[in-house]
Amino acid sequence: MKRWWMMKTLVVELGTRSYPIYIGEGLLARADILHSHIDGRQVMIVTNDTVAPLYLQKAQAALAGLQCHTVILPDGEQYKTWEVLNRIFDALLERQCDRRVTVMALGGGVIGDMAGFAAACYQRGVPFIQIPTTLLAQVDSSVGGKTGVNHPLGKNMIGAFHQPNCVLIDTATLNTLPDRELSAGLAEVIKYGLIRDAAFLEWLEKNMDALLGRDAEVLAAAIERSCRNKAEVVAADERESGVRALLNLGHTFGHAIETGVGYGVWLHGEAVAAGMYMAAALSERLGWISAADVARVEAVIRSARLPVRAPTNLEPERMLELMAVDKKAQEGMIRLVLLKAVGEAVLTADYDPVQLREIIATCRQ
Amino acid sequence: MKRWWMMKTLVVELGTRSYPIYIGEGLLARADILHSHIDGRQVMIVTNDTVAPLYLQKAQAALAGLQCHTVILPDGEQYKTWEVLNRIFDALLERQCDRRVTVMALGGGVIGDMAGFAAACYQRGVPFIQIPTTLLAQVDSSVGGKTGVNHPLGKNMIGAFHQPNCVLIDTATLNTLPDRELSAGLAEVIKYGLIRDAAFLEWLEKNMDALLGRDAEVLAAAIERSCRNKAEVVAADERESGVRALLNLGHTFGHAIETGVGYGVWLHGEAVAAGMYMAAALSERLGWISAADVARVEAVIRSARLPVRAPTNLEPERMLELMAVDKKAQEGMIRLVLLKAVGEAVLTADYDPVQLREIIATCRQ
Repeated sequence: MKRWWMMKTLVVELGTRSYPIYIGEGLLARADILHSHIDGRQVMIVTNDTVAPLYLQKAQAALAGLQCHTVILPDGEQYKTWEVLNRIFDALLERQCDRRVTVMALGGGVIGDMAGFAAACYQRGVPFIQIPTTLLAQVDSSVGGKTGVNHPLGKNMIGAFHQPNCVLIDTATLNTLPDRELSAGLAEVIKYGLIRDAAFLEWLEKNMDALLGRDAEVLAAAIERSCRNKAEVVAADERESGVRALLNLGHTFGHAIETGVGYGVWLHGEAVAAGMYMAAALSERLGWISAADVARVEAVIRSARLPVRAPTNLEPERMLELMAVDKKAQEGMIRLVLLKAVGEAVLTADYDPVQLREIIATCRQ
Repeated sequence: MKRWWMMKTLVVELGTRSYPIYIGEGLLARADILHSHIDGRQVMIVTNDTVAPLYLQKAQAALAGLQCHTVILPDGEQYKTWEVLNRIFDALLERQCDRRVTVMALGGGVIGDMAGFAAACYQRGVPFIQIPTTLLAQVDSSVGGKTGVNHPLGKNMIGAFHQPNCVLIDTATLNTLPDRELSAGLAEVIKYGLIRDAAFLEWLEKNMDALLGRDAEVLAAAIERSCRNKAEVVAADERESGVRALLNLGHTFGHAIETGVGYGVWLHGEAVAAGMYMAAALSERLGWISAADVARVEAVIRSARLPVRAPTNLEPERMLELMAVDKKAQEGMIRLVLLKAVGEAVLTADYDPVQLREIIATCRQ
């Protein structure tokens, strides 16, 4: 039995909706932390068929003494749908869960988004805890309260803002994460460097090999710095009326890729990586950053073993159409997050659509 | 052309989410009111196949100058489902509606609940306007921000709190309302009298014939007083952590009836009427009100041509089971709104389950 833990705690400051993010190795075994964030007697764990064999028992053990139910969903972005979401509601109602039930997400971004949305809507809102088990979920999607499902016509189009009671990040869960998923998570890590933390980008350039080699300390440092960036932005703009939109660097391109090739074919982080490169390339055309800057962006993305091109089977015209249903669009205008400098992003519609079209036509595999 | 309007305005006080309720005859033609509550250029009218032939053109005319889209749903509680809700999302995405679209509910409680829930979830929340066209929606469901859909295992189990930008009540729409629907609306009107407004109950007893005869002035007065009661309660407790639960007099019984006999067979107001009588009968058993009080409750409900008994094809045991999934239930205990006096309600689990069982077994058609 482990005798001590190193744990870091960050707080997302949102007034009465403030909550802690706990980061440390082995935290999934820390029953005391979980219990301190659960009010009622009922817990519904939402997980998937990849994560359940690895961590479900541990989670259940930590919840000993509570009425603990489980719903296991199929793994993959293609299952982030209404239909699969309904299985969570079915389970909650079949188990007669009342308004004090805590919904607990145990898994990656898809599980967190769906469990959170179910918690937002079940009986018009019940408590919610995030236990992210992928790097992407740990550094990005588990923090900030964005929840939802996809629609065949657009990513994350149906959802709610619903903040968790806490986020518990057990960095040991990364030991079982496939390499491809680790790289996908690094896309969102790199994003913080590009949009608002140039010093972090430098650190990432130096430490990319250690990250890919799963050096525990380096990974924990990257998670902590990412969560700090995320928490700061969310605290400043919970509902995305301003600065929070900058977290979408590469996402308008990326969502179009994910929707265009079919949910689950490209990982979210892969699509975002290609999208960030395209955003950088367009920023250069606008004269905002230099060719050397673009080369630097390309290098750091590639060093994380991520793509910088869209798939060839997605026609540029189709990609533009899909980008037009982005949540940031206004009156038919696609607003994009672009780079004023490496480390400084801006939301803008102030670009030439012809140049955007050229970038999309050029940046294909 | 009408040269003047008599309009009353009530405000629901909810800080930054405060909004007006406009009550008057012919308000649907008042383009200026609607336009003052619409920010963007896009409007999606959500209505049903009963209301559309009657009022859709009028609504569209009032929105002249805006991009106005429409989605027409089938009419009835049995269509208040995920599947039908999805048609609203389909329409919003097919029409490339962005985050500034205003969703406008034109119809009764089902349309208001579904359009409101769609507005709550589309792109994680867009503006919303209520134009209730049934008495029930005008006096109750359009005010207060409760939105949602039914689940086969429970009424209104999936939903959100999402306040409208305004509620526009055109009392002229009641001219086309079937008698059965008018009576159903009166159930919620009587409810305010029973739970918190004894003077209003007396007024209703005196004016029931005029209400059923559709006397325009008397109906408008009943709507205004009901909305005032609702607005006061919602302002005091938006998310139902306390006093708002009292608005559920008769609803735990009523929802069980609606779910038990199949959504759409009994109207919501009919089921609530029978439920209010049962709540009164149980309150008498507890010694809180007198037999004369119960007789008075029965008389006022019957005078509105509403039932005071549950359907015989719903077994008492099944009804109890269905009541247990009520949103007010806690740790298996059914909490009920009962009457301490005529005009004073209380939320309580302090009753004898045997007595509840007896009431349910006795109060059948």
